[in-house]
Amino acid sequence: MRPRVPVLAAAAALTGLFMTPDTTHGDEGMWLFSNPPRALLKERYGFEPDQKWLDHVRLSSVRFNSGGSGSFVSPDGLVMTNHHVGADDIQKLSTKERNFLRDGFHARTRDQELKCKGLELNVLIGIKDVTAEVEGAVPAGTPAAEAFKLRQAKIAELQNAASDEKANVRGDVVTLYAGGQYHLYTARRYTDVRLVFAPEKQIAFFGGDPDNFEFPRYDLDICFFRVYENDKPLKCEHHLTWSPNGSKEGELVFVSGHPGRTNRGNTVEELKYLRDTGYPYLLNRLNRLEVLLGSWVERSEDNRQKGEDELFGIQNSRKARIGGLAGLMDPALMGRKVKEEERLKAFAKSFSRSDGPEVLAAFDTVAKAEKVRAELIKEMTVLENAAGFNSQSFGIARTLLRAADELPKPAGERLREFAKSRIPILKVSLFSDEPIPEDLETLKLADGLQFLAVTLGPDSDLVKQVLAGKSPRERAFELIRDTKVRDPEFRKKVFEAIEAAAEGMKAVDPALLKDPMIELARLVDGPSRAVRKRSETEVDEPKRQAYAALAKARFAMDGDKVYPDATFTLRLAFGTVKGYTEDGKPVPPYTTFEGLYKRSAEQGNKGPFELPKRWAERKDRLDLKTPFNFVCTADIIGGNSGSPVVNRAGEVVGLIFDGNIQSLVLDVIFDQEQARAVSVDSRGIVEALRKVYDAGELADELAGKR
Amino acid sequence: MRPRVPVLAAAAALTGLFMTPDTTHGDEGMWLFSNPPRALLKERYGFEPDQKWLDHVRLSSVRFNSGGSGSFVSPDGLVMTNHHVGADDIQKLSTKERNFLRDGFHARTRDQELKCKGLELNVLIGIKDVTAEVEGAVPAGTPAAEAFKLRQAKIAELQNAASDEKANVRGDVVTLYAGGQYHLYTARRYTDVRLVFAPEKQIAFFGGDPDNFEFPRYDLDICFFRVYENDKPLKCEHHLTWSPNGSKEGELVFVSGHPGRTNRGNTVEELKYLRDTGYPYLLNRLNRLEVLLGSWVERSEDNRQKGEDELFGIQNSRKARIGGLAGLMDPALMGRKVKEEERLKAFAKSFSRSDGPEVLAAFDTVAKAEKVRAELIKEMTVLENAAGFNSQSFGIARTLLRAADELPKPAGERLREFAKSRIPILKVSLFSDEPIPEDLETLKLADGLQFLAVTLGPDSDLVKQVLAGKSPRERAFELIRDTKVRDPEFRKKVFEAIEAAAEGMKAVDPALLKDPMIELARLVDGPSRAVRKRSETEVDEPKRQAYAALAKARFAMDGDKVYPDATFTLRLAFGTVKGYTEDGKPVPPYTTFEGLYKRSAEQGNKGPFELPKRWAERKDRLDLKTPFNFVCTADIIGGNSGSPVVNRAGEVVGLIFDGNIQSLVLDVIFDQEQARAVSVDSRGIVEALRKVYDAGELADELAGKR
Repeated sequence: MRPRVPVLAAAAALTGLFMTPDTTHGDEGMWLFSNPPRALLKERYGFEPDQKWLDHVRLSSVRFNSGGSGSFVSPDGLVMTNHHVGADDIQKLSTKERNFLRDGFHARTRDQELKCKGLELNVLIGIKDVTAEVEGAVPAGTPAAEAFKLRQAKIAELQNAASDEKANVRGDVVTLYAGGQYHLYTARRYTDVRLVFAPEKQIAFFGGDPDNFEFPRYDLDICFFRVYENDKPLKCEHHLTWSPNGSKEGELVFVSGHPGRTNRGNTVEELKYLRDTGYPYLLNRLNRLEVLLGSWVERSEDNRQKGEDELFGIQNSRKARIGGLAGLMDPALMGRKVKEEERLKAFAKSFSRSDGPEVLAAFDTVAKAEKVRAELIKEMTVLENAAGFNSQSFGIARTLLRAADELPKPAGERLREFAKSRIPILKVSLFSDEPIPEDLETLKLADGLQFLAVTLGPDSDLVKQVLAGKSPRERAFELIRDTKVRDPEFRKKVFEAIEAAAEGMKAVDPALLKDPMIELARLVDGPSRAVRKRSETEVDEPKRQAYAALAKARFAMDGDKVYPDATFTLRLAFGTVKGYTEDGKPVPPYTTFEGLYKRSAEQGNKGPFELPKRWAERKDRLDLKTPFNFVCTADIIGGNSGSPVVNRAGEVVGLIFDGNIQSLVLDVIFDQEQARAVSVDSRGIVEALRKVYDAGELADELAGKR
Repeated sequence: MRPRVPVLAAAAALTGLFMTPDTTHGDEGMWLFSNPPRALLKERYGFEPDQKWLDHVRLSSVRFNSGGSGSFVSPDGLVMTNHHVGADDIQKLSTKERNFLRDGFHARTRDQELKCKGLELNVLIGIKDVTAEVEGAVPAGTPAAEAFKLRQAKIAELQNAASDEKANVRGDVVTLYAGGQYHLYTARRYTDVRLVFAPEKQIAFFGGDPDNFEFPRYDLDICFFRVYENDKPLKCEHHLTWSPNGSKEGELVFVSGHPGRTNRGNTVEELKYLRDTGYPYLLNRLNRLEVLLGSWVERSEDNRQKGEDELFGIQNSRKARIGGLAGLMDPALMGRKVKEEERLKAFAKSFSRSDGPEVLAAFDTVAKAEKVRAELIKEMTVLENAAGFNSQSFGIARTLLRAADELPKPAGERLREFAKSRIPILKVSLFSDEPIPEDLETLKLADGLQFLAVTLGPDSDLVKQVLAGKSPRERAFELIRDTKVRDPEFRKKVFEAIEAAAEGMKAVDPALLKDPMIELARLVDGPSRAVRKRSETEVDEPKRQAYAALAKARFAMDGDKVYPDATFTLRLAFGTVKGYTEDGKPVPPYTTFEGLYKRSAEQGNKGPFELPKRWAERKDRLDLKTPFNFVCTADIIGGNSGSPVVNRAGEVVGLIFDGNIQSLVLDVIFDQEQARAVSVDSRGIVEALRKVYDAGELADELAGKR
């Protein structure tokens, strides 16, 4: 499955980067809605989307704050996405008695729809180029640390001005082309989101981790939510209608969604960092967590319910990174990147007398920054990324501790996660009453503390202070047992006191922060902030400037054929429905329900290949020739999960949920030979809703019949 | 489950070490049969085993060349061991149609017994102290490298003299007390071993990895083989008889088996190396392999059959090492080791004018060697331990390549695995016609090559030569596709030509070794041998000498209360059947069949908790109160798997198959509070054989009724 923006990828994705195609080729591109590939589409496909088409598709598209994409698919606020995008929320709604993630959920009437905890959807309502304002805030020649501060201050100012908490509008300044452009994106926030329908996880994720990122595929990776406003279903002016006939082989299709992060503009030195240090280090950690959680989840059904969603995310990230590393290890691919880089260097030399050397120096700047990054990776991972304290409890404790430090500061001087525009969403997550299981927390924290000790050395002063003379397991046990941060009331009380104190320009009462986990966060906050600061000033900011120079050069070289690297902002991709060839054998573009039953039978209907009861019983009702999943050449990446696939008429023909294994290289370079986006077919969705789930009313709503 | 000597532990266990108790306490000790704790047993339990008792138990004990222990349990050569010790061999006998590992096996008549491929059992028939001979071969003051060579030459000479290929006798010089003593062990080899009975893996490994190393436990981890000689069942003068009544709580019991490796004599600096470098590095690798194989095995039933046994071993090692690392991370434990070391240092200062400083210097020597070890760990792992070429094919190719180099050398100068005494077993394994699955080999080799590239750097000359301009996956694919080493006929032809050439003092025809995998082995053999040599001369040999000095000091300090660290040689442990307390709750010593059915039901009878069909159907036939598994305080470790548990009368009351999680610390220090050995109860074995498997004839044979 396409990953949501991977939680653990943070260390590898701290900087914004940009793409560097020779020229774009094939169906390449994650295009901005403000700069779609009009000429290209017209030339190649004889199709020219007008502004109305673009606006309609954009305003029907939805971003999930939990990571992932979706779309409005009825005038009554019905939202379609992937089961794996909704999984966190489905799990939060589950109880010991009712496991909706495993067994599925179906609200037959509106009053059965269940309100999600902490889920927020955004719709992009405005795009404005603010490059001039942001650049204007930083006088030429400003030193890096100061430049960073000034830019952050301006960005915070622009965001604040665009945000309107009462109207549920948030402003975000989006960095594109690695700082080549800044756009102010305004989004409408929806926070009353209710679960309407989810199939059983066994069919949503049929084939499980084994079939993940593979094709042929047979997954009903769908779920439906409904957005409410003032306790009533949202009336959507813009929503996508359902195609009556679905797609066919060779047809042009579009994907509107939120690709999370690509690294196509990476210099060769940065790719080598990822290949030699970043990915291997991250993979070690993912393997470790997969084994830890995997074995724990197997101990009991209770454990499974508590931990399987997190495990699922880890496996997904792991497979994606393995694919990515395999791509970086391919000398042919690296050779292509070297050539592209040579082309840019040659261009830079002829570019202009003053800018040419700056561009060439930018390559060295990146190389130097990558050295620092490699030097910092361990401390960044265990301290600032908190892998050494792996638990929700520590995350909450640190948020409270830092809120007390940050909120009294002027907007522009705060750590970025405490920017005014982020406070509402921070609160939603902080005040969520989703239970935090004590045993899972202890397991993870004990492992995290051991990882910390191994990373920094068990005899280092900091580790000794953290462990306080105990073993990692003992220390984790007492910390989790004694902390109050798992109580949402406690969190609310503390955070609101911090806010009140900050507004009154007073320090918060220290007694409020007296909690063993907050004490621990305080103990490591100095070293943690120190390494973050080095990373920001010696890695992020020099690279941002260097990549801005490279982006400028590339603009000059390639003009507006260039699209910016993905940044979890809304993009439009296009492609055709098309199979491919693997080991000399053709892989057709469509699978059917018939194939599903065959695959399950071959695998003994066991484990991840076990069909849900309903599917086993209702086989005879289904038209087995119905298309179930299909592939197309559209350029997608993690974060596109849940994106609608639409035809020229803007009608839904599918739902993106994965890329094949060959597509994992798209992170760094587009390749159309074998890389494919994998979707659920719109016809399969309707057939399953009607025949397997008796969800005729939902199918009718999709068809516009109610 | 107790690991067989873990395949992957090689890097962490290259050196022989020795134990360092203050005095032994509780039921501590893995005693030599030539020096059992007579006084202690008499004093504490009023029991004094006589020589006849000791000889009988020793000659009834069996060592598996595949790693693990067993015992003769009938006059007709019937051997009892664990299912997980026999698993490799059971799998080798399986076919696509008949999966004995999964479904079990039962030969109802002798002619249905299936001959194993490459399995060899050894019985220890003689023990002789040859310390004086070995020490006499190394004049005082000989430099380390030369000393190593001289000692190896003497050892090879002693082994050769004791070996008698025709009589199937092999001689092994066993290093005890880390070189404090050398014993010549002679063993009778049995190579015609046939499978008699194995239960379904689901019941042998009930609870799977989740319940592994846990208690309460419900595993029928048994299987039976029969030794043949001249195509007839072996007539055993010495075999263990079955106890009619089993054990009871508080009863004194003995364990006779082959503990693989303990590190109880490790200096604090060595423990720190293990804690900070060795174990974390190994765990990273185990996690990586577990994730790699785990996800591959899930892809299809065919994959599962090919890979699950290897996966199983990896999970087992991983859990063991996690437990071990947790122990090393415990400051209380490390504190105890520090104190023990201080005691020895204090003793050394008063020890003798000449030896005292030598003992103190030995601590520094170990510390220095550990630094080199840390420096070499990566290259040792990827090159000499071949993790960078992870595949059976590479292992075979290197064996052929090195055989051509080594066999012409005089015995004492060969790499140790080509010592004359090891050639027969090397041939058994090399000529085995067990199929080597191409797809699994490609998967592992591709991962190995990627690991090699990350470890040494993809741009290093060696890696570039190894990959030959291809990606790891492509290179692995072509190497595995093109090599001939998976063909046993090819291996046989080449090895026999090498042997013939060596005998004729001629070089082997180079055309014979023309194979892409052998070429690869040749390419890396220089660097690989170089790092091995550094490891042997700068780590192993200085440590061997240092630990010999420490052992001497400890002898002087503690006298014959001392037992040597485990070395996969036969040992006698003792203890009592006894429960323990965990999180304030008592854990009783016995489980029953009733508990098995309860645990399965609680877990939804799914995955590793799914009962085999026979067990589900025949529940009513069983006496549910029959003891199934039990714990005792005996001092065991990996390699003890399959050891018989006997009572004072020398009768079988159980079969060791695991230690609980608290026992994982026994690798470095004995602890009796919670650490327990876990056994299958003899009563549970017989009840299951009769009622579930209709194996009355086998139960009768155990009971001495046929």
